[in-house]
Formats: sequence, C-alpha cells, structure tokens
Amino acid sequence: MSPEQTAAALDAIPQPLVLIGADMRIAAMNARASELFRVAGIGRHYATVLRNPAVLDAIDAVLKGDRPGTARFYTGDSREGTWRVSAIPVRGDGGMMLSFEDVTDVEHAGQMRRDFVTNVSHELKTPLTALLGFIETLRGPAREDAAARDRFLEIMEKEAARMNRLVSDLLSLSRVETTERLRPTEKLSLREIAGTVVNAVRPMADAADVVLRLETEEGLETSAFDVMGDPDQLQQIVLNLVENAIKYGASGGEVTIRLSLREREAVFRGPGVQLDVIDKGEGFDPIHIPRLTERFYRVDTHRSREQGGTGLGLAIVKHIVSRHRGRFRIESAPGEGATFTILLPAA
Amino acid sequence: MSPEQTAAALDAIPQPLVLIGADMRIAAMNARASELFRVAGIGRHYATVLRNPAVLDAIDAVLKGDRPGTARFYTGDSREGTWRVSAIPVRGDGGMMLSFEDVTDVEHAGQMRRDFVTNVSHELKTPLTALLGFIETLRGPAREDAAARDRFLEIMEKEAARMNRLVSDLLSLSRVETTERLRPTEKLSLREIAGTVVNAVRPMADAADVVLRLETEEGLETSAFDVMGDPDQLQQIVLNLVENAIKYGASGGEVTIRLSLREREAVFRGPGVQLDVIDKGEGFDPIHIPRLTERFYRVDTHRSREQGGTGLGLAIVKHIVSRHRGRFRIESAPGEGATFTILLPAA
Repeated sequence: MSPEQTAAALDAIPQPLVLIGADMRIAAMNARASELFRVAGIGRHYATVLRNPAVLDAIDAVLKGDRPGTARFYTGDSREGTWRVSAIPVRGDGGMMLSFEDVTDVEHAGQMRRDFVTNVSHELKTPLTALLGFIETLRGPAREDAAARDRFLEIMEKEAARMNRLVSDLLSLSRVETTERLRPTEKLSLREIAGTVVNAVRPMADAADVVLRLETEEGLETSAFDVMGDPDQLQQIVLNLVENAIKYGASGGEVTIRLSLREREAVFRGPGVQLDVIDKGEGFDPIHIPRLTERFYRVDTHRSREQGGTGLGLAIVKHIVSRHRGRFRIESAPGEGATFTILLPAA
Repeated sequence: MSPEQTAAALDAIPQPLVLIGADMRIAAMNARASELFRVAGIGRHYATVLRNPAVLDAIDAVLKGDRPGTARFYTGDSREGTWRVSAIPVRGDGGMMLSFEDVTDVEHAGQMRRDFVTNVSHELKTPLTALLGFIETLRGPAREDAAARDRFLEIMEKEAARMNRLVSDLLSLSRVETTERLRPTEKLSLREIAGTVVNAVRPMADAADVVLRLETEEGLETSAFDVMGDPDQLQQIVLNLVENAIKYGASGGEVTIRLSLREREAVFRGPGVQLDVIDKGEGFDPIHIPRLTERFYRVDTHRSREQGGTGLGLAIVKHIVSRHRGRFRIESAPGEGATFTILLPAA
C-alpha cells in the first residue's frame, strides 16, 4: 500500500486515529483525529500536537512499560465530549497507535439514569412524608376526631392514588422502551381507538363541564384510518392526550378530537393518519414545548400535582409514537388553548 | 508503508477492521477482526468470509449508494455480544473499510436501567396497593370501628415507613454512584465510626435481645484505625451491616463488631484496616453470596420485607467500599451465622 492508500484507509475508520512512529513523530493521523485536535500534525513530535495531559499520560504508560495505556479526557470546545484513548504499541515498529473512542453517550446515559432516580425519589418523597404525617396524626392528636379523620383520609387516598399512577407510568415507560425497536404488526383503526377513548373519558369530561367532540372527515369508512399499531399503546396515548386536555384545558369548555387523512406526508414518503386533540383552555408559553416530553418536566408543577399528574404522560406518548414511526407535535400559546397532534403512517 | 507495516498498524487498533478492495476481495483484516469472524480471509471475496446478513446488508448499502452503511448484529458464540458495523467507502480506491464497534455494554446498561425501574416499581406497588386498600376500608366498612382503625393505621405506618426508606436508599445509591470516581480526602478513624454506630443501634439491639460487642486489638490508639474516607458514607455502611446483623441474626443473641489491622494486605500493596460484623444467627446458603450486593436481591424476600428491608442496603455498601478502594467480603453457612467484612487501605 502506498502512504496515500494507507491514509485513505485510515480516513474510512470512524474513530480518530493517530499513528506515532519510533521517532516519536506523528506518522499518520486520520481526518477525524485532525478534526478532534484541530491540527494536521504529520511529521511533528506528538507532544506538540496532542497537548491534552490525559492523552500524554496514556502515551507515557506505553513508553514506560510497552503495554496499552488508556485515559479518558474531555474536549471543552464546541464538540464537547468524553473520549477514551487507547495507546497500543505497533508490532515490530517501536511506535504506537492512538485510537479514540467517543464515550459521551455512555457517560450521558449514566447521568440520565441517576437524574431519573433522583427525580422519581423526589416525586415520591413529598406524598410519602404527607402520608406518614397524616398517619401519625390519626394515631395521636386526631385519634377521636371523626371530621378530621374523614378529611385526612380523603387527602391520603388522593396522594396514594397519585403515587400508584406514578408507579404504573414508570412501568409503562419501561415496557414501551423495551419494545421500542419492534415494529407493531397489527392493523387497526385510529378512528375506533378514538371512539373507545371518548366513551371511557365521557364521565370525567362531564364532571369537569367539558363538551367532548369527535370529528371525522365526512363519508369515510372506519378502515380509512387504519394504521399498523399496538392497540394498548395507541389507546394509552390517545387517553393520555384527551385526559390532559380535560385536566388542563377545562376552562375552554370543550375538547375536540379530530381525525383526518394526509394524502402525502413528506416524513413518511406516503399517506398518513392524523389525530389532533384540541382544547380551548389557557394554553401555555411555547417556550415549554421542546421540553414537554421530558420525564417529569411540567409547565406548572404545582398544578400538575394537584391534578394528580405524574409528569410522565407525554414522555410515554413520545416513546409510543416513536415506536410507531410516527410524529408527535405540540402547539400552544397563552390564551389560545393547545393542540397535540399525532401523525402515523397509514396502513 | 509496507503491507506489513499497514497490517501491524491496523492490529494496534482495538476495533475489528476489514478493508475490502475494489475487486470485492478482502485486502486487509486486523487481528481483532480475524478473531471476531474466526477466519483470516485476506484475498478471499468478502461474502465468503463475512457471512452475517446484517454485515452483508451494510456493505450492500455502500455498494448501492456510495454512502456509509451501518448495521447491528449479534454474535451468538462464546464471545456473545452486539456490534455496530459501519461500512465507509475508501477515497479514490473503489473499496471500503468495515469497522466494528462493540456496543454490548451500552445495550446492557439500557437493559439494567429498565430492570431497575421494573424492580423499583414492583417494590412500591405492593405497599401502595395495601395502603389504598386500608384507606378505602377506613373510609367505608371500618369507618366506625376504632379497634380496626388502630390496627390498620399501625400497619399503614409500617408500610409507608418502608417505602420512605426505599426512597432514601434510592437517593443514597444515586449519590454514591455520582461520587464513585472521587477519592475521599478526609482522614478518620474506623474505630470511632464503629463506636458511634454501636451507640446509635444499642436501643434496637436491646429491643431484639441482642448483645452488641465492639472488639478492638489491645493497646492500640484510635488513630491506628485511620483511613481516608467520607464520614457519612462510612457511617452508613457500618450502620447497614450492624442493623442487618441484628435483624437477620438476632436468634444468635449476639453481634460482634471487630476491628483489626492487616499489616500487609496484598490487594492494597500496603497495610489495611479491617472491620468484621459477626452474627451467630441462622446464616444462609453461600450460594447467595455472589448476588447479595445486587439491587433488590434477597435471601428471603418475605422476611426482608417483614423486617422493613429495602433490598438496597448491601448494594450501597458495595458502592461505598468501592469508592474507598476497599474490599467487601461475605461469609456464611446455614446454622453458622454470618460475617460481613470491610477492608480499607490504612491512611
């Protein structure tokens, strides 16, 4: 192989690579490495090019002991990230190969898991403390007070029910993630699912003085709204959206579930089925939209908890829609209600 | 570079690599790739060597569109794992470079997180269901029954307290993981910590009819047991071990906390401080030992819950000991009690 061929071959490897010769000068460096170190340093002494202390330490380990050295370092610039570097001696050459592995995502996943645990714990801590307080009061000071007992037990039931929903939502989310790469294989009508959900939440809407409307384009068969889906999961997302609309958009007095067909949806390169859940409530600042599907993110934490919300409903919707290769969009503005849209490829 | 030099350079890259020439024959293959595919196929057509369908598909994608192709495949043999393969065209050559990235650990981390969420949810589900049931009964059938109320409230308090401990343990574990790479910098005496813990658990031991003993080698200063540590974390692990010994080894009637010095501990290449927590209770089958520090693993789930255990205590001990660069060992046999040993490098 010519040096040009070797260089081209190294450039076709996605990891940054730096080959150091026996003279401690850089013999080769692929395009990814030049990008990472912002310099093409062929022919120069390695220490003048790779100035990161962790990288230099890994090289020292090889020079001292002729064994692979590893280190971990952070790039603090626009391509911020964490890299694991291995320095491995090159056989019969006296030099070594440095290869860099991007472990940013792995580190990020660990951080996300810890944040998740912290969030779940805090979500549970408050209602548990309240429950323990009420139990203590009922066993002591309010032991003989029937009125206080009724009041406390009512609040306790609400708190315990919300914790129970939180646990159910955690399990749902976990199950959805497990299936996220499996494409659903059942053909079903989004129109029928919307009908089932509307019947199920009718009592809740009545209690909140909200008129529920289900709108479909005229003259279409139920099967026109067929998608490939998981029935339980699709029912759950429509339920989550309609319940949210009733809880947070009740002041508008009506919630509309609208089904429509998109003949040619660019993102699918084909036809799509669209479901909008529209409320005429207070709406919210669109600044929240990008973060609304994050776990435990809420526009108004106090209000969400008051309503028994777990902070996981829209995260579940996002994951289920993603499993169905669909799109999920949110639109809102203060005073203008909110529209939550699911778009799925037509079957 | 000579072909030998190129081969040696590729062998010094930790990822498996296969270079395919314009003639679709394998031009180079590093040692890691030969190991992965169990064949050194230089000069042969790629399809006769790389028979994995996912890998062949990735290559096809490049051949059809001249763009990088990626795939993910599983090796089902002794080196079972998940690999992400990228096929990238080699500039001016007509061939391509295949590089394989081991994503087994990343996939495993995702699975562990989901298992963790499932476990936490199940741990909470049972006591929550019980609480909700009691609340309902207290609001309905048992509304006027003072005796039932007292009994139920007592159980409810126990369940809520256990959930509260579970949440606290989850937060502890999360905090310990966050600090696991930071070496503790405070010098403190394990002897003093053991003394503090013994005083704190004395009432619990008395209630369980257990005699607590703190034994130290004669004639040694408190500072002889100095280690570099985090005071809260070290106190927590000693507390966890002593509480466990009282809870599960009470039938033995005594629990001994023994402090000793190891002049030359091979694992540290230096002196160590050892703390044993010894009970004379029923003990357990040593078959459980390797899994005891896993989250939510229990020798006897029912009994652990009865005792208010969260299933996280020993996982916390393991992580804290690991942060302190120490060793944690467990010994037991049915009928012979149990010994839990912490060994830390002496300061």
